[in-house]
Amino acid sequence: MDSVPRRKNSVEGGRGDGEQPVEVMTGMRHECGVFGCVAAAPWPTQIDVAHVICLGLVALQHRGQESAGIVTSEGGNSKNFHVKKGMGMINSVFNDEAMKTLKGNLGIGHTRYSTSAASEEVNCQPFVVHTAHGVLGVAHNGEIVNCDKLRNLVLSRGVGLSTRSDSELITQALCLTPPGAERDGEPDWPARIKNLMKLAPLSYSLVLMEKDRVFGVRDPYGNRPLCLGKIVPINNVYPGEIVEISKTGIKTITIVERPHDDPQAFCIFEYVYFARSDSIFEGQMVYSARLQCGRQLARETLVDADIVSSVPESGTAAAHGFSRESGIPFAEVLCKNRYVGRTFIQPSTRLRQLGVAKKFGALSENLKDKKVILIDDSIVRGNTIGPIIKLLRDAGAKEVHVRIASPPLQYPCYMGINIPTKDELIANHLDPIKLAKHTGADTLAYLSVEGLKLAVRENIDNKEHKSVGHCTACLTGQYPAALEW
Amino acid sequence: MDSVPRRKNSVEGGRGDGEQPVEVMTGMRHECGVFGCVAAAPWPTQIDVAHVICLGLVALQHRGQESAGIVTSEGGNSKNFHVKKGMGMINSVFNDEAMKTLKGNLGIGHTRYSTSAASEEVNCQPFVVHTAHGVLGVAHNGEIVNCDKLRNLVLSRGVGLSTRSDSELITQALCLTPPGAERDGEPDWPARIKNLMKLAPLSYSLVLMEKDRVFGVRDPYGNRPLCLGKIVPINNVYPGEIVEISKTGIKTITIVERPHDDPQAFCIFEYVYFARSDSIFEGQMVYSARLQCGRQLARETLVDADIVSSVPESGTAAAHGFSRESGIPFAEVLCKNRYVGRTFIQPSTRLRQLGVAKKFGALSENLKDKKVILIDDSIVRGNTIGPIIKLLRDAGAKEVHVRIASPPLQYPCYMGINIPTKDELIANHLDPIKLAKHTGADTLAYLSVEGLKLAVRENIDNKEHKSVGHCTACLTGQYPAALEW
Amino acid sequence: MDSVPRRKNSVEGGRGDGEQPVEVMTGMRHECGVFGCVAAAPWPTQIDVAHVICLGLVALQHRGQESAGIVTSEGGNSKNFHVKKGMGMINSVFNDEAMKTLKGNLGIGHTRYSTSAASEEVNCQPFVVHTAHGVLGVAHNGEIVNCDKLRNLVLSRGVGLSTRSDSELITQALCLTPPGAERDGEPDWPARIKNLMKLAPLSYSLVLMEKDRVFGVRDPYGNRPLCLGKIVPINNVYPGEIVEISKTGIKTITIVERPHDDPQAFCIFEYVYFARSDSIFEGQMVYSARLQCGRQLARETLVDADIVSSVPESGTAAAHGFSRESGIPFAEVLCKNRYVGRTFIQPSTRLRQLGVAKKFGALSENLKDKKVILIDDSIVRGNTIGPIIKLLRDAGAKEVHVRIASPPLQYPCYMGINIPTKDELIANHLDPIKLAKHTGADTLAYLSVEGLKLAVRENIDNKEHKSVGHCTACLTGQYPAALEW
Amino acid sequence: MDSVPRRKNSVEGGRGDGEQPVEVMTGMRHECGVFGCVAAAPWPTQIDVAHVICLGLVALQHRGQESAGIVTSEGGNSKNFHVKKGMGMINSVFNDEAMKTLKGNLGIGHTRYSTSAASEEVNCQPFVVHTAHGVLGVAHNGEIVNCDKLRNLVLSRGVGLSTRSDSELITQALCLTPPGAERDGEPDWPARIKNLMKLAPLSYSLVLMEKDRVFGVRDPYGNRPLCLGKIVPINNVYPGEIVEISKTGIKTITIVERPHDDPQAFCIFEYVYFARSDSIFEGQMVYSARLQCGRQLARETLVDADIVSSVPESGTAAAHGFSRESGIPFAEVLCKNRYVGRTFIQPSTRLRQLGVAKKFGALSENLKDKKVILIDDSIVRGNTIGPIIKLLRDAGAKEVHVRIASPPLQYPCYMGINIPTKDELIANHLDPIKLAKHTGADTLAYLSVEGLKLAVRENIDNKEHKSVGHCTACLTGQYPAALEW
Repeated sequence: MDSVPRRKNSVEGGRGDGEQPVEVMTGMRHECGVFGCVAAAPWPTQIDVAHVICLGLVALQHRGQESAGIVTSEGGNSKNFHVKKGMGMINSVFNDEAMKTLKGNLGIGHTRYSTSAASEEVNCQPFVVHTAHGVLGVAHNGEIVNCDKLRNLVLSRGVGLSTRSDSELITQALCLTPPGAERDGEPDWPARIKNLMKLAPLSYSLVLMEKDRVFGVRDPYGNRPLCLGKIVPINNVYPGEIVEISKTGIKTITIVERPHDDPQAFCIFEYVYFARSDSIFEGQMVYSARLQCGRQLARETLVDADIVSSVPESGTAAAHGFSRESGIPFAEVLCKNRYVGRTFIQPSTRLRQLGVAKKFGALSENLKDKKVILIDDSIVRGNTIGPIIKLLRDAGAKEVHVRIASPPLQYPCYMGINIPTKDELIANHLDPIKLAKHTGADTLAYLSVEGLKLAVRENIDNKEHKSVGHCTACLTGQYPAALEW
Repeated sequence: MDSVPRRKNSVEGGRGDGEQPVEVMTGMRHECGVFGCVAAAPWPTQIDVAHVICLGLVALQHRGQESAGIVTSEGGNSKNFHVKKGMGMINSVFNDEAMKTLKGNLGIGHTRYSTSAASEEVNCQPFVVHTAHGVLGVAHNGEIVNCDKLRNLVLSRGVGLSTRSDSELITQALCLTPPGAERDGEPDWPARIKNLMKLAPLSYSLVLMEKDRVFGVRDPYGNRPLCLGKIVPINNVYPGEIVEISKTGIKTITIVERPHDDPQAFCIFEYVYFARSDSIFEGQMVYSARLQCGRQLARETLVDADIVSSVPESGTAAAHGFSRESGIPFAEVLCKNRYVGRTFIQPSTRLRQLGVAKKFGALSENLKDKKVILIDDSIVRGNTIGPIIKLLRDAGAKEVHVRIASPPLQYPCYMGINIPTKDELIANHLDPIKLAKHTGADTLAYLSVEGLKLAVRENIDNKEHKSVGHCTACLTGQYPAALEW
Repeated sequence: MDSVPRRKNSVEGGRGDGEQPVEVMTGMRHECGVFGCVAAAPWPTQIDVAHVICLGLVALQHRGQESAGIVTSEGGNSKNFHVKKGMGMINSVFNDEAMKTLKGNLGIGHTRYSTSAASEEVNCQPFVVHTAHGVLGVAHNGEIVNCDKLRNLVLSRGVGLSTRSDSELITQALCLTPPGAERDGEPDWPARIKNLMKLAPLSYSLVLMEKDRVFGVRDPYGNRPLCLGKIVPINNVYPGEIVEISKTGIKTITIVERPHDDPQAFCIFEYVYFARSDSIFEGQMVYSARLQCGRQLARETLVDADIVSSVPESGTAAAHGFSRESGIPFAEVLCKNRYVGRTFIQPSTRLRQLGVAKKFGALSENLKDKKVILIDDSIVRGNTIGPIIKLLRDAGAKEVHVRIASPPLQYPCYMGINIPTKDELIANHLDPIKLAKHTGADTLAYLSVEGLKLAVRENIDNKEHKSVGHCTACLTGQYPAALEW
Repeated sequence: MDSVPRRKNSVEGGRGDGEQPVEVMTGMRHECGVFGCVAAAPWPTQIDVAHVICLGLVALQHRGQESAGIVTSEGGNSKNFHVKKGMGMINSVFNDEAMKTLKGNLGIGHTRYSTSAASEEVNCQPFVVHTAHGVLGVAHNGEIVNCDKLRNLVLSRGVGLSTRSDSELITQALCLTPPGAERDGEPDWPARIKNLMKLAPLSYSLVLMEKDRVFGVRDPYGNRPLCLGKIVPINNVYPGEIVEISKTGIKTITIVERPHDDPQAFCIFEYVYFARSDSIFEGQMVYSARLQCGRQLARETLVDADIVSSVPESGTAAAHGFSRESGIPFAEVLCKNRYVGRTFIQPSTRLRQLGVAKKFGALSENLKDKKVILIDDSIVRGNTIGPIIKLLRDAGAKEVHVRIASPPLQYPCYMGINIPTKDELIANHLDPIKLAKHTGADTLAYLSVEGLKLAVRENIDNKEHKSVGHCTACLTGQYPAALEW
């Protein structure tokens, strides 16, 4: 087995949210979003599902902005899939001409964050493969934790792999017929999918398309989210669930169990940062969970102040929660320049400070002589909060107390999230007191791990989500499974 | 004189704010932003002003996103200007390679909204011209109201004009020597600028660069804003003022008077919509003016409700003002998808509604069974508010009361702002009651013109801004000057 | 097995020669060129083989201009290949930056004609695959005649295929371990290649690269050419030969036999049209063979005339041969406009004639009152010769006698050459007399098949090329092998 | 007046002929081609002249390949011109979409060689200007020899110039009304053109378009060629002639005299190298003149040999002439690779030789043991002939005698032709004996200046071209006019 470095160790930058698409300085980022769709009988026949998938991908665009793809099929006797993939945002890839070619009432789509442009075009998803049992389309989000083992298995079967991507690996692993998987000459894709899930239980969401069916698959640990619905997403797919979507409706094929009675491990950072605030996971709205984080943060770290405010926009929900819990009024203190992209070469500290000023403007009349509690959702490298504090002070703030609505980030993720190396995570170098000093804050405090767990559990409908459990590996170092990697 | 249509009558779409860069459906847009800079003596010599101008243009990017340009000079004996202009956002035009060529300690920059891409590259500003008295750089924001008259004057002097742009017209008008403008063989640019300002008193902000000087010029009516500062903008240039910026400092050359004792006419929509909320005009912060609009709106149009909210983000400042004045708590009810661009072909009403859903997500837990007052800054064509109201109701809102923090838009602007034709302005077709019905609101109300004037005057420092007056032409039809156009 | 149409049946245009790169109207075209190289011990170590491969590909550029690729390796313990592939001409794909990344002393390259741009980028060769026995690079020229059978075999082994290309098929077929192919844990690539050649004996040239070796492979029928040399190509690879090139030198691994004692079948159109005139095949220079075709044509079809001339440049060698054999002086009568590309929309016959005039100019003083014999290498669709004759007559030619230095083209090729469908081949519709009338020639005659065979055999060194035999399928319908397709 | 260097002194490379479009190493190049057209009454109304102009520009493409433009008008009351200009070859600029916009029955076109891509887009011709007397389109070929003087005049009249191009200068000079130029309120463009021709008598061809007329203008010295015709060019415009083309026909407005009774000065290198061989100048076909150059060269420099050959394709006409005069048979010895572009980084002499081998292939069977006379049209830097000689010798040539069908190039051109600096011209460093040694030729000889003059005069129809005279400045240093530059 060769020693090509896993991409998880490569140096990568960029936070995937909308406001800083090409920023080099900060944080974590999500790698992908997937979407599948079948137009059922009463669907107006003149509407191709590609339009619906496009809408779905736009709604997932915050999970990846560098390439996008859609594969559709007319089902039935049609033998070919229609494919359109390309580098760039969804709206640039799927122009009118592209949409016209994407005929059919079945389809899957993918949006993705990739590190290098041209050379990676071959890695754009969905993948389409011709197999002995017909054409198959595959799109996935996440990362196969034991990919080396799976790769060796595939190679040993005489298959050549042309990329290092998990997608090609998953695709070829699905093609390799598991013992007894075919019945009466018909391809038994559910059996193959189950086989794959046992070979590789963590971590991914998959959508697969064959002749007349789309499958939605969520890994047994439930680490990556996946939703299911009619037009508008309404239910989460259960951990380990294989859902079949066809013209006749939606049905659960099976629910694959976790190994060793391991508990469920839904990524807790989906609540903190990744997900859109109107998403609903485990029965609760993400915005509400963030509001709860703010309330809990106020309970844990209250300090005397005139106003509560936020670094827009990721900290705003928590700031409103903090304000309501503490009774300290909320007021905006920063306005954001939406056009700021990469930072220019800045030959002096003076200009560097101006560089920060570019991205945010201080609302001086709201700050003058005020004691401010400033809420942000998380701290990764810690290099943006300092200049913001400087900006607030220059605009007249008397005190600035930083409150972070999540615990310190200390460990890498091997489950599809790009987090800087341990060495780059500021929390591994400076405790809150030193970090306050380093950034120029009067005080700085984090939400506790227990507080975060409390916040995201509070509204859970216990009947439906009784086995709730979260992956907190990046905060605690406790990974969900003892897989050999 | 030929009859080529003025561009103000051409069909154009697109609102220049960050969230909907290529949206076809809505509103008004600002056409340009200008910026000039001279690095004075103590400036670190290794820093080219181009970096500072870039920062300045990024801060002005919301005023134009389709082309950008910078012209710099090393001053003194150097005979050539360094020029870099191009279609696209600032960050794409001014890459590292471009920045290296922009040497020098003097410079001007421009950011612009243009309607068609390739064919308009020749119109990118700043313009550079070689004249009998050396090289001159020119960038402007605004629109020459009596351009036909000025154009005929220039043509009659034997000059050929290669474009229809005001920029080329201004440039050639400056080159035509006015009587007695040169003194002792030296070019008397201030006299030429004054001459131009008398020929064309409305409406523009100009920055000009010659050998060792940059001039900042604001039209006598003060219709377009222009600020002046050291690193950070601190003062507005007075209406009619010509400011000279050179290594020896900043000085006022003259203040050109308005014709007929006309009052000042600063564009009131800069407060309502165009300007960044951290800008300071006439001694007051734009955010505060918007907050006041919200307070005034509450006084004029209060209704019983559970929460006050806004269409993010342009209505948020006013919503906080409304909340404070009324005592009704503020809560967010919409989250925004930052990646939404142009609308896809949508073959059915069902999909069209989904199309709106793409751009905003409703925060259902905040809305459930609530009576909501929804604040927006303005209504132009009125085709976005309806689907938003539908979205809120679908998410559980019991009542939706729309409150607009500005008066009805009813008239075209000839002073540099693109407003849809009178016929496209919804306020010319539906009164508030009919518009409420049309959009599905329970009630709908605007701020009064008097209320708006009150809001933007309230904090003015009377000593410095005693002659304050605003252009409300788009709201009242009262244009600032009776110029023949 | 699904019924996706073979690309050989697809509608394609364009003649691959240099003078008409995007012409839609005419002829046949070659699909690919391949090149492999190993730098042996005394090679100056500072020179990467990529430069040599580039030169080689440029020399092969006439065999394909739409994409190009090079794969190199540093050999020994290095685990990764360096890959650069892209759409476009060689000089645009392999810029300085690309060349810097192509380190190593082993490499293979490919140049290719593809039909559609963006969507085909995944098909650019060489292919690189990771296998259980290390990395493998593959480039091929030609077409697997029994590809459906081979494809079914590969699919039935549980391999998914993501494209319809022969390249991916060859690659995966090589990866599937044949019985007993591995020895002592070492990969036995020669055994795998032999296995492939037996599964698919027709038609291709292949270059393969593994850790420390490059293999050159020519199909058993010898249908596609492949040369071998030190810096400059000197010898043809024998039909069926597998050549291994490594640091220790060049050696023949084996020569795979043709099935059923079939005779050799080298494509005779390489002499007529495809090959560069300085190429040497079967011991003779292509230019000389063309000269002989001209001589033979004079023997078979002489007519009284003042001058012999050619359609530049493909007919010029034959025209010189015709002139020498007949004693009629050669003179140029057409000059070519090198910049003519696709034909514009031409709304009238008059303009269409001008369109032809664009591509060629008549040298009137050479034509005035002359009886002209005009030589061309071949006629495909027959739509360019008519306007040329018109042009010559308008410029004063008294008679125009067309002589074609090859027999009528009547049948499709399934061995890597794109020929229009039978229906589009003019020779299937009009005999020489009717074609003369149709095109406006006084007379028109072809070289006979026997004459062509005579011309290309005449100089052959019988010792080295005793088993010479040619494929004349496109002229006679006699295909080299009775393979089931 | 500032001292920006004239572009004629800038370092530029590239020979404008078709075979080596991006070659850096060699020669001279022509800068532009112009074309004008009016569709007269019986013209089929559904055909826009843009198609005809396109054909014309393609025929002129060898005179400039980096940008192209067409301006058309519907004449009569229409006030606007239709403009399409762009960087690139004609076929890429004028796609179907562009052609659709170029309505009308009047038009002018331009094709141009420019040195730098993006920044020069503003310099693409034709220029269109709005003037006090309507719209004017201007395209020119050549170079204003006394441009500094003309520039100062224009600037002193209060006109700003935005580029350094002669085109803008010509345009503005035409707009400046000369004394008494207007009659009865109607614009008197012919008087303005005459005025310009007196201010700047050398060297250009111009086409101008106003409302209903196209003007063709050739400079009084006749230095640049310009032809006139109905569909197909038939007559040269006389030196100094202003031709008016309108719906009512073609008429000569006037013929402007040369200053000081200077003789005519048609560029002799048009015959040697620039023009297409089917062009007719001064009553003779260019191909015939080149044939005569070859005959004359044989008379002056004959040497014993087996064959006469040429460097394809520029030397072929002369080689045929040499062969006929000497009786030594002509044979091709080099085949050309049409795909060779810029030379790659070549780290050794060995590879550099291979680099040359790329561009030409030697036809060894034609060369073996032969004494070869090799004809080329001209020698500029002298760095390509050496490797060609090496190639011929390696392929078996016994002797190589180089014969150049023009005299040594020794002086710069200020009249629109880009020639390397004096120092780069090899003839200024090495006499024929030393150059033969330097390049590896057995002998090397040039045509004499008198021989060249003889060759280009021989067929002239004395009645029509009695005052024939040629500019030989680049060969003799005798410039046609003593203008102050």
